[in-house]
Amino acid sequence: MKYFENVKKIKYEGSKSLDPYTFKYYNAEEIIMGKPMKEHLKFSMAYWHTMTGGGTDPFGSATMIRPWDEDATGMERAKIRVKVAFEFMEKIGLEYFCFHDADIAPQGATLEETNKNLDEIVDLIEVEMKRTKIKLLWGTTNAFTHPRFVNGASTSPNADVFAYAAAQVKKAIEITHRLGGAGYVFWGGREGYETLLNTDMKFELENLARLLKMAVDYAKEIDFDVQFYIEPKPKEPTKHQYDFDSATVVSFLRANNLDNHFKLNIETNHATLAMHTMQHELRFAADNDMLGSVDANQGDLLLGWDTDQFPTNIYNAVLTMYEILRAGGLTTGGLNFDAKVRRPSFTKEDLLIAHIVGMDTYAAGLRIAANLLEDGVFEDNLKQRYRSYDSGIGKKIVNNEVGFKELETYILNRKEIEANESGKQELLESILNQYIIG
Amino acid sequence: MKYFENVKKIKYEGSKSLDPYTFKYYNAEEIIMGKPMKEHLKFSMAYWHTMTGGGTDPFGSATMIRPWDEDATGMERAKIRVKVAFEFMEKIGLEYFCFHDADIAPQGATLEETNKNLDEIVDLIEVEMKRTKIKLLWGTTNAFTHPRFVNGASTSPNADVFAYAAAQVKKAIEITHRLGGAGYVFWGGREGYETLLNTDMKFELENLARLLKMAVDYAKEIDFDVQFYIEPKPKEPTKHQYDFDSATVVSFLRANNLDNHFKLNIETNHATLAMHTMQHELRFAADNDMLGSVDANQGDLLLGWDTDQFPTNIYNAVLTMYEILRAGGLTTGGLNFDAKVRRPSFTKEDLLIAHIVGMDTYAAGLRIAANLLEDGVFEDNLKQRYRSYDSGIGKKIVNNEVGFKELETYILNRKEIEANESGKQELLESILNQYIIG
Amino acid sequence: MKYFENVKKIKYEGSKSLDPYTFKYYNAEEIIMGKPMKEHLKFSMAYWHTMTGGGTDPFGSATMIRPWDEDATGMERAKIRVKVAFEFMEKIGLEYFCFHDADIAPQGATLEETNKNLDEIVDLIEVEMKRTKIKLLWGTTNAFTHPRFVNGASTSPNADVFAYAAAQVKKAIEITHRLGGAGYVFWGGREGYETLLNTDMKFELENLARLLKMAVDYAKEIDFDVQFYIEPKPKEPTKHQYDFDSATVVSFLRANNLDNHFKLNIETNHATLAMHTMQHELRFAADNDMLGSVDANQGDLLLGWDTDQFPTNIYNAVLTMYEILRAGGLTTGGLNFDAKVRRPSFTKEDLLIAHIVGMDTYAAGLRIAANLLEDGVFEDNLKQRYRSYDSGIGKKIVNNEVGFKELETYILNRKEIEANESGKQELLESILNQYIIG
Amino acid sequence: MKYFENVKKIKYEGSKSLDPYTFKYYNAEEIIMGKPMKEHLKFSMAYWHTMTGGGTDPFGSATMIRPWDEDATGMERAKIRVKVAFEFMEKIGLEYFCFHDADIAPQGATLEETNKNLDEIVDLIEVEMKRTKIKLLWGTTNAFTHPRFVNGASTSPNADVFAYAAAQVKKAIEITHRLGGAGYVFWGGREGYETLLNTDMKFELENLARLLKMAVDYAKEIDFDVQFYIEPKPKEPTKHQYDFDSATVVSFLRANNLDNHFKLNIETNHATLAMHTMQHELRFAADNDMLGSVDANQGDLLLGWDTDQFPTNIYNAVLTMYEILRAGGLTTGGLNFDAKVRRPSFTKEDLLIAHIVGMDTYAAGLRIAANLLEDGVFEDNLKQRYRSYDSGIGKKIVNNEVGFKELETYILNRKEIEANESGKQELLESILNQYIIG
Repeated sequence: MKYFENVKKIKYEGSKSLDPYTFKYYNAEEIIMGKPMKEHLKFSMAYWHTMTGGGTDPFGSATMIRPWDEDATGMERAKIRVKVAFEFMEKIGLEYFCFHDADIAPQGATLEETNKNLDEIVDLIEVEMKRTKIKLLWGTTNAFTHPRFVNGASTSPNADVFAYAAAQVKKAIEITHRLGGAGYVFWGGREGYETLLNTDMKFELENLARLLKMAVDYAKEIDFDVQFYIEPKPKEPTKHQYDFDSATVVSFLRANNLDNHFKLNIETNHATLAMHTMQHELRFAADNDMLGSVDANQGDLLLGWDTDQFPTNIYNAVLTMYEILRAGGLTTGGLNFDAKVRRPSFTKEDLLIAHIVGMDTYAAGLRIAANLLEDGVFEDNLKQRYRSYDSGIGKKIVNNEVGFKELETYILNRKEIEANESGKQELLESILNQYIIG
Repeated sequence: MKYFENVKKIKYEGSKSLDPYTFKYYNAEEIIMGKPMKEHLKFSMAYWHTMTGGGTDPFGSATMIRPWDEDATGMERAKIRVKVAFEFMEKIGLEYFCFHDADIAPQGATLEETNKNLDEIVDLIEVEMKRTKIKLLWGTTNAFTHPRFVNGASTSPNADVFAYAAAQVKKAIEITHRLGGAGYVFWGGREGYETLLNTDMKFELENLARLLKMAVDYAKEIDFDVQFYIEPKPKEPTKHQYDFDSATVVSFLRANNLDNHFKLNIETNHATLAMHTMQHELRFAADNDMLGSVDANQGDLLLGWDTDQFPTNIYNAVLTMYEILRAGGLTTGGLNFDAKVRRPSFTKEDLLIAHIVGMDTYAAGLRIAANLLEDGVFEDNLKQRYRSYDSGIGKKIVNNEVGFKELETYILNRKEIEANESGKQELLESILNQYIIG
Repeated sequence: MKYFENVKKIKYEGSKSLDPYTFKYYNAEEIIMGKPMKEHLKFSMAYWHTMTGGGTDPFGSATMIRPWDEDATGMERAKIRVKVAFEFMEKIGLEYFCFHDADIAPQGATLEETNKNLDEIVDLIEVEMKRTKIKLLWGTTNAFTHPRFVNGASTSPNADVFAYAAAQVKKAIEITHRLGGAGYVFWGGREGYETLLNTDMKFELENLARLLKMAVDYAKEIDFDVQFYIEPKPKEPTKHQYDFDSATVVSFLRANNLDNHFKLNIETNHATLAMHTMQHELRFAADNDMLGSVDANQGDLLLGWDTDQFPTNIYNAVLTMYEILRAGGLTTGGLNFDAKVRRPSFTKEDLLIAHIVGMDTYAAGLRIAANLLEDGVFEDNLKQRYRSYDSGIGKKIVNNEVGFKELETYILNRKEIEANESGKQELLESILNQYIIG
Repeated sequence: MKYFENVKKIKYEGSKSLDPYTFKYYNAEEIIMGKPMKEHLKFSMAYWHTMTGGGTDPFGSATMIRPWDEDATGMERAKIRVKVAFEFMEKIGLEYFCFHDADIAPQGATLEETNKNLDEIVDLIEVEMKRTKIKLLWGTTNAFTHPRFVNGASTSPNADVFAYAAAQVKKAIEITHRLGGAGYVFWGGREGYETLLNTDMKFELENLARLLKMAVDYAKEIDFDVQFYIEPKPKEPTKHQYDFDSATVVSFLRANNLDNHFKLNIETNHATLAMHTMQHELRFAADNDMLGSVDANQGDLLLGWDTDQFPTNIYNAVLTMYEILRAGGLTTGGLNFDAKVRRPSFTKEDLLIAHIVGMDTYAAGLRIAANLLEDGVFEDNLKQRYRSYDSGIGKKIVNNEVGFKELETYILNRKEIEANESGKQELLESILNQYIIG
C-alpha cells in the first residue's frame, strides 16, 4: 500500500512553476562550483518530526493526520512507518535520513526487548536502504523523553541512569554502524540543570565527558570509523543546557581531549536561541575545524522557544551555504531537516510541501552563495580591509616580532596614525540583496 | 560650496548595476498599480540621524566625518546643514524630510532665543523648499534630550516642565504649519517611567492626554489641518514607555477621545522591540483606521535595543508594502528613514549608499507586494479559508442571529462538525519566496 | 482511601520552623489591615496543574507519580481525583479552586456525552464543596487542547468550531453557576495566529467579541451574576495571542462595549512574557478599574516560554500584594496557583510543598506590603514628588484651565523653571529591602 | 574644599535605621566565617561611573549635578575629581577603587601628552592613597570610546590601531603597577563585530590573543606580579562581543595558552545579557579555577541592554556571596560597583545612597550565604542527591573502570534500575526564602 501514490516524483520545474509539487530551485544534478547540487546539500529527513511527530504542543494534543498510523500500533505501526518513510524520501528525492533509536521502534518492557524491537526494524530499514540507495546521515539516541531521564542521562545524579544511557548509546552506535551511518550525534537532551541549588555542575560535566569517551572507545573497539558530533543548544527542555553554543562545546571538548573525535552539528534555531546568528555559529565552528553537519530549520526570533520551523528564509540559507562553501563543504555531514510542519499544517500534503520549500530555499541559497564566492564579493573586501597587516608594523605584529615597547615607540614616533576606513556594512548588505532579489 | 558635487544625481540603472551610486530597484516614475513608485513610497530623510547624528553610542564618542560641520558652530553650522540637507536630498531624489525642532537650530539660553533661532533657520528651509520642491512630511519636538525632561515632558512630576513642553510643541506646530507639513508626530521620548515605586502612572497618562488635547485645540485655532501621529515604542530610553505598541496607543487615544485626531506612525524597530512583527503593527493599525505613516528602518532581533538600521531586509519591505497597499496606501504619511548609518560607516559616501539601499529595498518590496496583490495570492486563500462564514451557521453567527442556545442545539444535532483545513503556512511562505527570489 | 493521610493538616509554625509541612508565614486568621490573611489572599488550587498535570514537556513524557491515577481510568479516575483534590485542599487549607471543564471529566464521543460526564462529576464536586466549605473561585473552558481547536476556537476560520466552542462555554458557565462560582475566565487558548499570511485578524477579533457578548447575554438570561475575566497572554501556544497584555485587552473590551462585564485575570508569568513587570500589569488594570483576579505563579526571565513556576520571589509577592491592597483588594477574585511543580519534583510531597511555599511567599508579601502602606513609604514620596500640580500653573493644567498660549506665556515670563528633583530610585529600593530582609 | 562635608562618615546602625546615610547591614569589622565583612567583600568604587559619569543615554544629554565639575575643566577638573573621589570613598568606607586610564586624566593631542597627563594625576592619586590607605583593586584601559577604536582595538583591521592600543595598555599596566594594583582587567570594549560580512573573525581573535600575550610578557619584564582578568560580555556596544560569556572566555584563554595568567572578572549585568544567571557564571568560573573578581551591579531582565544598576536584589547578592564563599573567597579580586545611579538620580546625595544600598545588599547577602553554608543547607542535599556515585556501579563509573559493555551487562542483568528522586526545587527555594526573609 502506498500513501503518496497520487503524487508524482517531485521534479525541478524552475522558479515560475505554479505546481506546489515541483522544485522551483532544487535541481539535483545541476553543477555548482564543480559538484552537483545534491552533493553540496545532502538533504536528510528527520525521522522523528516527519514520521513520528504528531503536532502536540504544551497546550494541545496531536493534530497530524497520518493515515498510515491508523491501522496498526506497536511494532506493526513501526514497520508501516519504515515503508512510508522510504516511499516519502523516494518521492521527494531525499537521499539521506537521520533517526533516534526511539523513533523507529517502540520501547519494550526491558532494554533487551527494546533492543530486539530495534533489530527487527533495522532489518527492514536495511532492506529499504538497499532497494532505494538512500543513506543514513547519522544516528542518535533519545535519552531524554523517558521519565528515567528526568534528571538527565549521563548527567543524572542516579548512577543507574548513567548506566542505562550508556547501554542505550552502545546499541544506537551499533545500529548506526550496521546501517553504514556516516555520523553519530549527541544532542544534549536533558544534560543540563533546572536549578543550581541542587546541582553539582562540575561533577555532571565530568560524567558527560565520561560517556563521550566511552563512546569513542567503543567505536574504536568495533572498528566503526564514525564521525561523532555534538549539537549545541542553550536551553529547553532544561533551564540551562550544558552544550550552550559552539564556543562552549568546543571548550568542553578540548578540556576533555575529545576534540579530535567530535565535530559540531549546528542547528539554526539553536543558534538563535543562544542569541547568535547561524552564520556566527558556523563560522566559529569552521574557524576551529569543527564544522560537521547542519540541522536545517529556522526559529521565530520574536518567540523564545525552539519552533523548529521548516527553513524558508533566504538570507539564512545564503549565509549558511556561504559558510559551508567557504569551509570547503561538509564532508561527512549534510543538511538535516530537523523541522516540523506547523501544527495547523496537518495534512500529509503539507509534509511534502514543507520539505520541498526547505530544499528549494537551500538550493536557491547555494546558487546565490556560489555566485557571491565566485565573484569574490566579500573576499575582495576582506583583503582590502585587513591589508595593513600585510606589511610594515602590521606584518611585524602578525609575525610576533614586536611587543609593547616596540609598539609604543612606533606610536610615539608617528605624528598621526593611519586613518580608519568605513566598515561599509550598508553597501555589503545592498550587494547581498542584489544577489538575492536578482 | 557643495559637499556631494563629485557624485551625480542618483539614477535608476536596474538590478545588474555595479555602481553603488545608482538605484537598482527604485525607479521613481515607474507606474505600479496605477501610481508612480514615488507616490507609493514618499521617502523622507530624517534630519536628526542624517544631518546631526554623530555616531555616539553608550560606549563611544562621535565617529562621523561630516566635512560641513568642521568650519562652523552654532547658528552658522545650522545654516550650512540646511544647505547640505537639501543638496543631499536633491542628489538622491528624496522628496520629503522630517525634523525635530532641536535638530535644525541650536537651543538658546531662553525659550525666546531658541524660538528666534528656529525662525531664522526656518526662513532658510523655506527658501530651499521652494527652490527644490522638497516637502515636509512631518515635524516634531525633541522633548527628551535636555536635562529638564529627565523625568518626562508632559508626564513630568514638575508642572513647569509640562508648561515648557507645551510651549515647545506650540512652536514646533507653528513651524510645521508654516512649512506646509502634512503631519506632526508625537514620539513618546521620556513619557514613561524608570520605576513604578515613584510613579503615579494614572496621573501621568492623564497629563499626556492633556497635552495632546491642547495640541488638537491649538491646531484648530490656527486653522492648521494637520494629521497628528503617535509613534509607539515599548521601552528605551525609559524602562517602560507609555506608548508601548499600536494596541496600547489606540486604546489610549480612544479612552481620551483623541482617536479622530490621531493616527499611528509605526516604526519597524519599535515593532520588534515590542515583540511584534512590523506586519502585525501595520495590520492592527489599518484594521483600526489608524495607519498613518511609517518609520522605515530595521532592528537586529538578536539585540535588545533600538539599533535604527537602514532597512535592507526584503521580507520586511515586501510585507510592509503589502500592508500599505492593502490599506489603500498612506495618505498624509510616507516612509521616513528613521535610520542611522552604522557607527563604522562614518563617511559621507556611506550616507548616500545607506539611503540608496533603503530606497531600493522598499522599491523592490513595492513591486513584489503589488505582484502578490494583483495575483491575489493571499486574498484568494483567505476567501477560501473563511468561506464557512458566508452561509449557513457561519452567516448566522456573523449576522448576530444566534446565541449560545442555538449554537448548542446546532452542535448537538450534528453527528460530526465540519473538518478543519490545513493552515498551509509552509506553502504560503514558499510562494512568497518565489515572488522575492524570482 | 486517603492519599495524604500521613501528613497532618498544614499549620502555621512561624518563620523558624524546620518542618517542610508547616507554614512559615501564612497564618490564615491573622488580622492584617483589618482583615484576616485568608480573606486578603483567597488562595486557589488550579485543578489542571495539580490534579491532571503529568509533567510532560515538548521533549519528555509524564514523570509525575500520582498513586491515585494508577487504579482507574476514564470516569472512575475522574471521580477519584475529585476526592483527592478536596483531601489535598483540606490538608493544606486552600479554600478555593478553579477548573476547566476538560480537567474534571473525560471528553465523550459527542458533546452530549461529554456534558453527561461533566454533570456526573459536578454532582460529586458539589457534595465535596458542601462537606468542606471549599468554594469555586472561577470556572473556565478548555477550547484549545482538542485538535478541533487547531486554528482557534471563536477565532477559527471554521464556523462549526465557533459553534462548538459556544456550546462548550455555555455548559461551562452553567456548571460554574451551579457550583456557585464567583467568576468565569476566558484565557485566549489559541485565539491568535501562527502567521498573518493566512489570517484575517479583523474578522477573527470580531468573532472573539461575538462569543464574549453571547456569554454576557447568556449569563443574564440564566440570572447568573458572575464576574467575567479575560486573562492576557502575549504568545504561546500561538505565535501571537490576541489578548497580548492588559492594555490590549482593555482596548478590545472597550471597543466592543464589553468593559462593564469583564475584568482582568492577570498572571505573573504572562506579564513578564509580555515584557512587563507584574506590578505594571496590576497597576494598569487597577487604574482602569479592571483588576479582577490573579494567577499567582512566576516565570524565569532568562527563558522565553511560560514556565508556570510556583511563586517564590518575595519582591514579586510584595509588589503584587501592594498593588492589590492599594486597589482596595480583590473583590470577586483571588490568588489562583496557576503553577506546576517542576518536572523533576514528581512526588506527591512536592505538590504539598510547592503550594506551601506559594502561600508562604504571598503571606510574607502581604505582611510586608501592609507595612509599607501603613507607613506610607511610597505614598508620602508620591505626594511630595507631584506637589507642583497642587497649586499654581500645575493646578491650572490639571483643571484644564490653560492651553498652549497660556503655557507659552507662562514660560516666556519666567527666568528659570522650577528645578527637577531626584527620582530617588536607589533610596526607594533600599527601603523596600529593609522591609523585606528585616 | 569638601563636597560631602555635610554628611558624616557612614556608619552601621542596623536594619531598623531610618537614616539613609547609615549602613543597615554592612558592618565592616563584623566577623563572618572567621573574617571581617570588609575582607570578604572588598568593595570598590568605579571611577568611571561615579566620578565621570554624566547620565547621558542614547536619547539624552548629561543630567548629573556634580558641583566639583563646575569650576574647572581639563587637568584642573581631573585634579579636583581625585580629591573628591577620595573624600567620597573615605566618607563611605570604600577601601578600593578601579579606573580606566581615560577616567582619571584628559587625553592629550598625542599619546605623549596623554601619558604626561596621566603621570601628573597618578602622582596625586598616590598621595591620596597613602593618606587614606585606600587601595587600587584593578586598573584598565579605555580602548573603545575614542573614534580610533571604531572598528575595535587589538581586533581592528587597522594595524596602527593595534599598535596604539598596545602602547596604551603598556602605560595603563605601568600605572597600575606604580599604584600597587592587585589586578588588571581587559574588558572587550569593541573587540567584536558589527557584521560578519566584513569580518575575519579568526584573524581578529588571533590578534586579540597577541595583545594579551604581550601584556603577560610585559608584566613579567617589569616584575609586576599582577592578576590579569578578562571580563565577559555578550553584546553591546558591538553586535557580537568576542568575550561572550565565561565559557567562551575560558575556551579562548586555553586555546591560546593564556589560562595560567588570567582569571575572570564577572559582571552581573553581563551574565544576564548572555542569558545566564550570575550564579551560573560564577560557578562555571570557580569550577574552572578562573573566578577572579566581580563587577557588582544588576540589570533589568525585561530590558535588553546593559543598565548597570546599583545592586539591590537580595537573591542575587546571596547567591553571589554563596558562590564566592564556596570557592574559598576572592583572593586578588573584590566587588567593584560597576554601577551608575539612574539618570533621574542626579544629586550627589544619590551617589552616596546608591553605594550604601549596594554595600548593604551584599553585606546582607554575605550574612545569609554564610548561614546557608554553615548550616550545610545545599551541601547536605547535594551529598544525598549524588550518593549513588559513592559506591557500586556509580563508583566504577567515576573511577573510569567500566565502559559501554560492562554498563550494558549491568543494565541487562537488573530487573529494574534504581528509582529517581525528586529534585526538590520548590523546597530548596522555600528554605532559601526563610534565610532571606527571616
